[in-house]
Amino acid sequence: MSSVEQNLVEGNKAYAEKFTQGNLALPPSQKYVVVTCMDARIDPAAAFNIPLGAAHIIRNAGGSAREAFRSLVISQQLLGTTDVLIIKHTGCGMLTFDNATARGVVAKNKGDAVAEEVKDLDFLTFPELEQAVKDDVQFLKSKKVEEGVQVSGWVYEVETGKVRKVE
Amino acid sequence: MSSVEQNLVEGNKAYAEKFTQGNLALPPSQKYVVVTCMDARIDPAAAFNIPLGAAHIIRNAGGSAREAFRSLVISQQLLGTTDVLIIKHTGCGMLTFDNATARGVVAKNKGDAVAEEVKDLDFLTFPELEQAVKDDVQFLKSKKVEEGVQVSGWVYEVETGKVRKVE
Repeated sequence: MSSVEQNLVEGNKAYAEKFTQGNLALPPSQKYVVVTCMDARIDPAAAFNIPLGAAHIIRNAGGSAREAFRSLVISQQLLGTTDVLIIKHTGCGMLTFDNATARGVVAKNKGDAVAEEVKDLDFLTFPELEQAVKDDVQFLKSKKVEEGVQVSGWVYEVETGKVRKVE
Repeated sequence: MSSVEQNLVEGNKAYAEKFTQGNLALPPSQKYVVVTCMDARIDPAAAFNIPLGAAHIIRNAGGSAREAFRSLVISQQLLGTTDVLIIKHTGCGMLTFDNATARGVVAKNKGDAVAEEVKDLDFLTFPELEQAVKDDVQFLKSKKVEEGVQVSGWVYEVETGKVRKVE
């Protein structure tokens, strides 16, 4: 077993020994969903004050609401959530490259044959943080299935731990 | 401001006041990435023993590695992660419906015109939990860009807080 797997098994053993919340319901008790980045420096439960069982948390590279659309429809239509918080963050890797750069890195790391495998992949990078938040808010507001859902956009500062509203 | 937004602002204020980890690096310090579900009953940092800054965490409905592929390529090729843990869970909503059911719920909630908007959406549901974990592990292993990456598959039990290895 790798050190990563050992860390999971040993840490989870300690968590499970103290675990007391095995009876929470499937639908989020506070009826909202957060879309944020996979970035290692973000702990949504702690930084955004989300108790266990309260909210769905969707995370991907950049906190893309476009990629999250499938999960959002499920969250809202099948599990009854009514609010969406889109929270992108300072220092995001997605601000530092574009599709051509990413494909070039794959070609350099793995060779041209492997790069071919990702040639049609849109990495969903963005050049400007606050505009990216606004674009994602507008993307959701443009969807008919999102009518009646409250959507807001935020920036989390990895340097300070502070969140601020953008839209 | 809604109660959901107030909870974020007030809880985050307390978090930021005690925040001391503003100098963490962008690349995950423990070089791994977790793919898990958006389910409200999962707190990956606590349950899977992930310190701030240590790992990328990708979450979507069902913990789909297929949908996570874009984020995984970024995590591995641009930010140097070498291990992937796919962790699905008991009691997952994705076990309880299929595409036809989901589209029917949208039609019932919002009307046929809105259901039309999601008619081509694959909700990526699965009928059997452990098989879904294995399928996602195999999906990643089938990708050339994932060669050299250590991929394992796990189930988290929302009833007990325990994780167990599937593959």
